[in-house]
Amino acid sequence: MAKTGKARHRRRKRRTPVGAAPGTLIADPAASATNLCLTLIAPDKRRSIRNAKIADIAASRGDWPVIWIDCSGLADVATIGEIGRMFGLHPLAVEDVVNSDQRPKAEFFDDHAFVALRMVDDAALQRYEQISVFFGEKFVITFQEREGDPFDPVRRRLAAEGPNRLRARQADYLAYALIDAVVDSYFAPIELISDEIEKIEEDMLGGAQKGLMQEMHVLRREITVLKGVLWPLRDALAALIRNDDPFVTRETKVFLNDTLDHAMRLIELVETQRDTLTGLIEMHLSLTQARTNEVISLLTIVSTIFIPLTFLVGVWGMNFDPDFSPWNMPELRAYYGYPAALLFMLGIAFALFWFFRWKKWL
Amino acid sequence: MAKTGKARHRRRKRRTPVGAAPGTLIADPAASATNLCLTLIAPDKRRSIRNAKIADIAASRGDWPVIWIDCSGLADVATIGEIGRMFGLHPLAVEDVVNSDQRPKAEFFDDHAFVALRMVDDAALQRYEQISVFFGEKFVITFQEREGDPFDPVRRRLAAEGPNRLRARQADYLAYALIDAVVDSYFAPIELISDEIEKIEEDMLGGAQKGLMQEMHVLRREITVLKGVLWPLRDALAALIRNDDPFVTRETKVFLNDTLDHAMRLIELVETQRDTLTGLIEMHLSLTQARTNEVISLLTIVSTIFIPLTFLVGVWGMNFDPDFSPWNMPELRAYYGYPAALLFMLGIAFALFWFFRWKKWL
Amino acid sequence: MAKTGKARHRRRKRRTPVGAAPGTLIADPAASATNLCLTLIAPDKRRSIRNAKIADIAASRGDWPVIWIDCSGLADVATIGEIGRMFGLHPLAVEDVVNSDQRPKAEFFDDHAFVALRMVDDAALQRYEQISVFFGEKFVITFQEREGDPFDPVRRRLAAEGPNRLRARQADYLAYALIDAVVDSYFAPIELISDEIEKIEEDMLGGAQKGLMQEMHVLRREITVLKGVLWPLRDALAALIRNDDPFVTRETKVFLNDTLDHAMRLIELVETQRDTLTGLIEMHLSLTQARTNEVISLLTIVSTIFIPLTFLVGVWGMNFDPDFSPWNMPELRAYYGYPAALLFMLGIAFALFWFFRWKKWL
Amino acid sequence: MAKTGKARHRRRKRRTPVGAAPGTLIADPAASATNLCLTLIAPDKRRSIRNAKIADIAASRGDWPVIWIDCSGLADVATIGEIGRMFGLHPLAVEDVVNSDQRPKAEFFDDHAFVALRMVDDAALQRYEQISVFFGEKFVITFQEREGDPFDPVRRRLAAEGPNRLRARQADYLAYALIDAVVDSYFAPIELISDEIEKIEEDMLGGAQKGLMQEMHVLRREITVLKGVLWPLRDALAALIRNDDPFVTRETKVFLNDTLDHAMRLIELVETQRDTLTGLIEMHLSLTQARTNEVISLLTIVSTIFIPLTFLVGVWGMNFDPDFSPWNMPELRAYYGYPAALLFMLGIAFALFWFFRWKKWL
Amino acid sequence: MAKTGKARHRRRKRRTPVGAAPGTLIADPAASATNLCLTLIAPDKRRSIRNAKIADIAASRGDWPVIWIDCSGLADVATIGEIGRMFGLHPLAVEDVVNSDQRPKAEFFDDHAFVALRMVDDAALQRYEQISVFFGEKFVITFQEREGDPFDPVRRRLAAEGPNRLRARQADYLAYALIDAVVDSYFAPIELISDEIEKIEEDMLGGAQKGLMQEMHVLRREITVLKGVLWPLRDALAALIRNDDPFVTRETKVFLNDTLDHAMRLIELVETQRDTLTGLIEMHLSLTQARTNEVISLLTIVSTIFIPLTFLVGVWGMNFDPDFSPWNMPELRAYYGYPAALLFMLGIAFALFWFFRWKKWL
Repeated sequence: MAKTGKARHRRRKRRTPVGAAPGTLIADPAASATNLCLTLIAPDKRRSIRNAKIADIAASRGDWPVIWIDCSGLADVATIGEIGRMFGLHPLAVEDVVNSDQRPKAEFFDDHAFVALRMVDDAALQRYEQISVFFGEKFVITFQEREGDPFDPVRRRLAAEGPNRLRARQADYLAYALIDAVVDSYFAPIELISDEIEKIEEDMLGGAQKGLMQEMHVLRREITVLKGVLWPLRDALAALIRNDDPFVTRETKVFLNDTLDHAMRLIELVETQRDTLTGLIEMHLSLTQARTNEVISLLTIVSTIFIPLTFLVGVWGMNFDPDFSPWNMPELRAYYGYPAALLFMLGIAFALFWFFRWKKWL
Repeated sequence: MAKTGKARHRRRKRRTPVGAAPGTLIADPAASATNLCLTLIAPDKRRSIRNAKIADIAASRGDWPVIWIDCSGLADVATIGEIGRMFGLHPLAVEDVVNSDQRPKAEFFDDHAFVALRMVDDAALQRYEQISVFFGEKFVITFQEREGDPFDPVRRRLAAEGPNRLRARQADYLAYALIDAVVDSYFAPIELISDEIEKIEEDMLGGAQKGLMQEMHVLRREITVLKGVLWPLRDALAALIRNDDPFVTRETKVFLNDTLDHAMRLIELVETQRDTLTGLIEMHLSLTQARTNEVISLLTIVSTIFIPLTFLVGVWGMNFDPDFSPWNMPELRAYYGYPAALLFMLGIAFALFWFFRWKKWL
Repeated sequence: MAKTGKARHRRRKRRTPVGAAPGTLIADPAASATNLCLTLIAPDKRRSIRNAKIADIAASRGDWPVIWIDCSGLADVATIGEIGRMFGLHPLAVEDVVNSDQRPKAEFFDDHAFVALRMVDDAALQRYEQISVFFGEKFVITFQEREGDPFDPVRRRLAAEGPNRLRARQADYLAYALIDAVVDSYFAPIELISDEIEKIEEDMLGGAQKGLMQEMHVLRREITVLKGVLWPLRDALAALIRNDDPFVTRETKVFLNDTLDHAMRLIELVETQRDTLTGLIEMHLSLTQARTNEVISLLTIVSTIFIPLTFLVGVWGMNFDPDFSPWNMPELRAYYGYPAALLFMLGIAFALFWFFRWKKWL
Repeated sequence: MAKTGKARHRRRKRRTPVGAAPGTLIADPAASATNLCLTLIAPDKRRSIRNAKIADIAASRGDWPVIWIDCSGLADVATIGEIGRMFGLHPLAVEDVVNSDQRPKAEFFDDHAFVALRMVDDAALQRYEQISVFFGEKFVITFQEREGDPFDPVRRRLAAEGPNRLRARQADYLAYALIDAVVDSYFAPIELISDEIEKIEEDMLGGAQKGLMQEMHVLRREITVLKGVLWPLRDALAALIRNDDPFVTRETKVFLNDTLDHAMRLIELVETQRDTLTGLIEMHLSLTQARTNEVISLLTIVSTIFIPLTFLVGVWGMNFDPDFSPWNMPELRAYYGYPAALLFMLGIAFALFWFFRWKKWL
Repeated sequence: MAKTGKARHRRRKRRTPVGAAPGTLIADPAASATNLCLTLIAPDKRRSIRNAKIADIAASRGDWPVIWIDCSGLADVATIGEIGRMFGLHPLAVEDVVNSDQRPKAEFFDDHAFVALRMVDDAALQRYEQISVFFGEKFVITFQEREGDPFDPVRRRLAAEGPNRLRARQADYLAYALIDAVVDSYFAPIELISDEIEKIEEDMLGGAQKGLMQEMHVLRREITVLKGVLWPLRDALAALIRNDDPFVTRETKVFLNDTLDHAMRLIELVETQRDTLTGLIEMHLSLTQARTNEVISLLTIVSTIFIPLTFLVGVWGMNFDPDFSPWNMPELRAYYGYPAALLFMLGIAFALFWFFRWKKWL
């Protein structure tokens, strides 16, 4: 799936310089340009402002029951800091948004919660992207590293006509819907891995061997990374559910429980994949060994049959001079010596052949 | 046991489209036709209505102490939704019925509980089927993906003449009986796996090698899947017992404890099978290696004895011209040269033979 | 230790037919004949009635402070059910007595406790037997599958003259003494396994290889089964100690703690055996590989020395006609050609010999 | 990374002589010379005294809100003991400073806390150094084994102009900043290890084999040591956060939580590295085996083709005398005997070639 | 380190006959002769009585704040029982003293505590010895199996002149000092094992192979035993610290915490050793395989080069009669036939040589 080079790139994520004052926002030079999308939500209506400015937020903030700010691209740290101050977000949490190499986690502050998630950006490339979700009583703010997110179904449901649970409920339900979308986005790449494992399994049972070990190694590394992301994701969801702060309603927690269940299912799928892969690696070793065995058996059979015969043949090829002494190679002048020698050798070959049959090596 | 192709089919279960509004019921195109079976239960009588309609339920609901609706086939989501609304089942739980790829779990709502179980549909095919059980004060509702369930003993006990604990007690006892039947249905396939492991063990100790690794791989995958189902099953049962809601009576919990015990026993059986299988795989590797060793030893012995002899024979086959110089191959004209050479070679062969004996390679 | 066939027999234990009403007693056709032994205990006296009848129990029940009913053989389910009803034992627990394939466990009911234990029936056969112990305020009832139990020391202590703690205390102390005897009965088979492991270790270090892997496999399976029995046994003991019901006195718990300690020691012994066995299996693989290595090295050395020499010898055995052209095999007629050729070949052999020495293959 | 010799040196750390009275300070003969650096901190100003004396501490202690004593080099146990008495540090904790082989831990006394940390002294040498941090209401005292620490960023932030959180807050915040700097100092060596693992991975996939196993073994040992340090480090941080004593303010705990998060991230990185390394070792074994397989296949093919041919050639090289009997090697004088023999041998070679093709060994 | 024979001896420790009445003291026939050493301790003075009698204890018991009875050798069970009765020690605990095969544990009775410890008796022999420590308000009683203990530093500190914490404090502090000495006595053998592991590592990297596997197996068994002792030791210490009984003062618990820390450090050392050893075993397997690979490669190269050449040489050694037909071996009489044949064979050899170079097998 992933190229080794990509994986390496991922690991080089910038962190705040070691020892810098906590809360300092320093943009990653490789960060995408920042782009705000403002969605104003009321039970009966909805307005969406693309390429919104800070001023737009300030203007519309008080008038709508719920406001969703979706900020993609983390290059403009000034704007991000401004949003943080406007909604009273904790500086450490805002720093975690910019230093996009956080473990998935949920943190609770006086009047808002912060959830850091990771998303598989693109199944074919296995690049992970951090999705940061803040939500309080009347707002949800999401930060993503790049354009392209799994939120489109949520947007469609927000835009849908008619009465709508997503618009009618509070900010925490919207936050749940977004988190749920991120969790569900893992199903696609995990199924891709399942397909690849199955393909390897079929190839292996079909007799192929070349390169399978390398493919399995890459898959195993991908699974290890997935597991490392999904476990803290699960913990973050569990923390959201356990939390007692009032801005996660009991009703939303029922839904979050469902998301937690999906996360557990994902973890179980990944664990099963890991087990299957370990089994395949063992089977691969065993099949390789079995093949070595088969090859060596052939070598042994052929050698064991022909080496003694060649010796015999060599004996009769020696130049001892039969004219010189009657003891010297009298068989060379026996009348039926040659056919008798051939028959004798044939007999030896057959005896060895039956010996191998009896040993079940043939 | 299972074909690889079947296993793949199982993994392709449909989920609600990623990001759809939670609670949306969308039928799986491959789902079986829905068929309701209504059983009305009172301590002293019992009535069963096959191919019941929604109206039948509404009509008889109030008159009987306990009502059991068994719905097999999940194609008709309208009916399923209707039942859900009629009994006030939680929409998320009803959605879990239709998206039949849930982990076994127990969930508690205000006036009813929801238990998702998995069942081995058919031991020979290893297809899993989801059994969803709802129960409240006066009703039990079960959903199954296909016809064919392990509930027949429960039906017989319900239909039995004379006073009857199953009819006399409340809905939670009936629910327990159904759950217990599902848990017990695992014993048959697990014993089948035990038989297969034993057969492999006997084959292996009997000297067979071909294909054993593949068979063991398939068994190991089946065991992994079973383990992945049984652990959450155990957790669901434990949650039922721990739960404080009044619709699981203390008396029923004693029985559920027994079921939990069965589940623990199943898990232990599966864990033991897994350990045994791991041991067999190791033994298989060891036996393969021992056989390679044996083959190579034979090759070494034969080669080591005959290669030097063939060299000697070749020496006396060289065409150096003894007429030209007395130094050239004088032995070819020695009176006892030929028998002496043969004896010399025989001596070498015996010496090597004893060397191998001493090394314990023969 | 155990034959494979026996192990299989053990696994075929009958269970109550899947789905039968819980509490139904159905005798295992292979069960031994039931035999009651009644022991009436008072601080200063003791009476034992062999082959007691139900009526004997009823007659003497009220007169003695403690009564111990030991029932061996589970064929007569009517008698067992009768005893259960007489002492008010829970039907599910009584069912567990008859379906003698329970996990070790402790369960507490209103006025009595139920402890299911497993016992190694006979170290040489590794057949497990279930020991069920019920005890209440004034009675202890034990059920065993077959004659032959580890209770003889308890019987002797009961029969001993003089003041006697075992007779003076309550039923719970007698129950403790019986449970303790069962736990201690594991020491003998575990030491037997230790002896076998040590024998294998000595054989392996002594150079033996044949059949060791199979022996180790059988031992590992026995250890797996032991572990699977001892862990729930430990849990059952811990549950007895943790329990708050009044019929386990604080004083007896101190003694049960000692038994728990023995169980922990047994588990540690088994875990150590398992580790040692795993280490031996690895060492066996390593030694096999080392031996393969040695064999192949010999083959390589002999082949590498003689194959080039045989080639040379073959060169001088070619029939190119030196009479036809001075370029054709002039060395055949060189005056010192033959001894020079021999010396040349000897030189090559020595050079290769030193090369192998330098490579440390010789 | 590390030399084996260095690793050994590390393990030989001196402990207080076994059985000595606890609290005895005995200098390690190899300890560096002690050097005090005193930093006096107030919200609006800051003074730093290098090579401070005990008297300097006593003189300025009362006048400043926070005082930081940084003591590098542990040779002068008299001074260390004097500082301990001056601030009322617990004797056991002071002993732990001097016996610098402690596990990372946090301990709480009446009016101060003690945190023992370990630091990777120098990534290239993998020498660990103990950093001991004491802090109370108005002081922070750090002890380090050698000059050279990760505190420079903290010093710069303390010296920075303008209002400053680090100067404005209490001693616990300064302690947090120092601990955070130590935790962050692990990122550099862990990235170094990641680089080495990646290099090994590339080498392995590129076909190199020599020495990789040894390199992986050294890396694995380094990772084992890192894991052994990071886990108790995490526990120490968690203990600091859980602690209820008043000298860790709730505000600082939020920041410590962030440090804990970094520690968790470090542990996850190390665990992932460990998994990757295990995978690489397995792949290495598999590739070695695959190569052996390839080599043996070649040997088998060449031998199997040529050994029978050489036998045939030997047959026609036998010296049976065709003049003596018409049965003796009549083919030697057949008109097309020689080319027919060559063609026959060519045919055999081709047949075997196709056999190997069919077996997929070519 | 240890001989196999010694290890076996250790395992044969006698236990109270299975089923004997708990609390029965039965001397191990192999137990050493009992020898009492009485130490009377007051803050300002101290008296020691070697070879004390029971009467001495009774005489001096009331007069001194703390009394330490050190009993070495467990043959005289009458004396041991007498001491037990004199200080009101629990019979089960006293039985555990005599049956010296206990797991390390701490138990608490009404007015005294019992700590069972294990000690490495002699690093070179790896014989374990049980140290039993009882302590109450005014007494400490230690039992050891044989003369020779790690208590000498404690004795010296008791005998030291001047004010002395060990004499000034209560019995629990003395008990702590003794327990601490036992725990610290593990550092020496663990460092010995570290040295041996390092030696094996150096040998392995230096190319040695013979016998390493056996050495590693013995070390691994020793480590397994150590781990099995240290974990319950840690638990016993934790139990002492957690305990609420008044005879362990809060002040002593701070010191016990330090001992617990040492125990944790020991466990970490042993776990690291275990990991390192596992790594070494894997590396050993890998190196053995690599060597096999190397040997087989040489065999393959030599065989593959010379077997075809020997075939060619054999072709020209056939006795087809060129006089009979011009088709028969015309090359034998070609003018440059012989040198051309040699060159041709040289060409084949070089081509194969380059092929192996290209394959990187040379």
